This record gives sequence, structure tokens and C-alpha cells, in this order.
Amino acid sequence: MTESNDRAQASEDVARIRELIEAWRQAVLAKDVNALVSHYAADVVVFDVVPPASLRGVEHYRENWQRWFDSMKGPLTFEMREVEVAASGDLAYAHSVNRVAVGEQDDIVRATVCFRKIDGDWRVVHEHASVPLTMDMDPDEKS
Amino acid sequence: MTESNDRAQASEDVARIRELIEAWRQAVLAKDVNALVSHYAADVVVFDVVPPASLRGVEHYRENWQRWFDSMKGPLTFEMREVEVAASGDLAYAHSVNRVAVGEQDDIVRATVCFRKIDGDWRVVHEHASVPLTMDMDPDEKS
Repeated sequence: MTESNDRAQASEDVARIRELIEAWRQAVLAKDVNALVSHYAADVVVFDVVPPASLRGVEHYRENWQRWFDSMKGPLTFEMREVEVAASGDLAYAHSVNRVAVGEQDDIVRATVCFRKIDGDWRVVHEHASVPLTMDMDPDEKS
Repeated sequence: MTESNDRAQASEDVARIRELIEAWRQAVLAKDVNALVSHYAADVVVFDVVPPASLRGVEHYRENWQRWFDSMKGPLTFEMREVEVAASGDLAYAHSVNRVAVGEQDDIVRATVCFRKIDGDWRVVHEHASVPLTMDMDPDEKS
């Protein structure tokens, strides 16, 4: 049985992924798109906050960030809360509830990130970021 | 080396998860909330299309679906496109771009689902569903 070895490896992997997540957050704050995409797989599939609904490829992802950085008016705040990470074998996932503020705009952005271990280190192979839909329906409709 | 065994197991796991996803879709179409949550972990963390931004627990998830089923006016269409699944060790993830139509409302909903193998079968431990944010900004702002 290698179960305890597997568990030790998963624990090490989770620690590494937490490092990558914090490095990614620092890259966002520094508006450094090269650092930001440095651990992304070339064919990453991204469901971003804004359209298109789905995009494939790290270059499109990079362009979205660059466009957002270029459009920013005011200082940026990017806090990650409720960060949970799990790893097993060559896969891992992380999710968090982030506070993203630019000037007077202040949003909650949910993030789910899936990683695959490729050539010994972790790469983002899928990312899903979103804000909850504002509902038009009457909250008392069931009363 | 057990690499080829690992690969055969991952392939079997992916097939099982595709079965679970199709069973889930059929449960949605049947508006059967019990079948819908039958492969969810009790403490699943869900980032749903509508607020709250994050919820924990299969009972809250079940209530969201029941509320939505109860509010439906018109026939339901639920198609899953671009379904991709990966598995390794005790973790797996799936993502898809779904078409969800109720009566005259017709939406694209992105879904990311993370699974963990518990007691020999797969359970959903995290789910993230969203629609892209409608942008207010001028698409020609960079010109």
C-alpha cells in the first residue's frame, strides 16, 4: 500500500498550488500579464467573467487581462477568500470567493481553477470566473 | 511502473463520470431533485448562477433546483455542449457549455464540476455554474 505516500504527495501538491495561486494574485496586483499566464497550459479552456462564454488558449486569456488592465481607472484591490485546494494524482482544483475592487466598483468574483501536473509542475488547464446573475424575479413569489 | 494501469483506470473513471453527467441531465429534464443530488457530497460547495455567491451543503443546492423547477413556465430544454472530462487518482473535473431554455428564455450556462472518488464511486464536491456578465462598456473604447 502506498496510501500514506499518496497522502504526503497530495499535501505537498496542495502547498505548491497555494504558492502558485498567491503568485498569480501578486501578478494581478502588479498588472504583469507575463507572470500571470506563466503557469497556464497553452490550450487552457477559460469561462471568463465577461463574454465570450468560453475561450481556448492562453493568448486569448492574456488579451482579456491586458484589456482589463488597460481600461482600469483607479487602484486595484484583489482579495481571495474561502480558498480551498485539493490534489490527487496529476489533477488538482482550487476554488475561492474573491473581492475585486477598482476605484468605486467593488465585486465578488467566484473562481474555480483546475490544474494538471505536466513535466513535474502544475499548469492551469481550466479556469471559471463569474459573478452571480442579478435576479429580476420577485423574492416573495412563493409566498 | 503502473503508468499504463493508471491510464486504464483514468479512462474507466472518465467513462463513469460521463454516465453520471448524463444521468444528472436526465434528472434535470425530469425535474427529479432526488435523482439530481444523488451523487453529491453532503458538504458540496456550489457557486450557482444566481445569488448567494457561494453556498455549502447539498440541501441548499436541492432547494435552489426545487425553487427553479417550481417557478418554471413552459417546457425545459437542457443541452450540454463541449463536454470535457479528466480524471486522475481520486479527483476528476468536467466542464461544459450548456444551452438552457425555458419557454422563451434561452441562456448559455457554463458549468464546471469537480468530483472526488469516495467509497468507490464519484461524488460532486464542487460545482460552478454561471452566465457571462453583460458588459456596459463601449466595445470601441480602445479604437
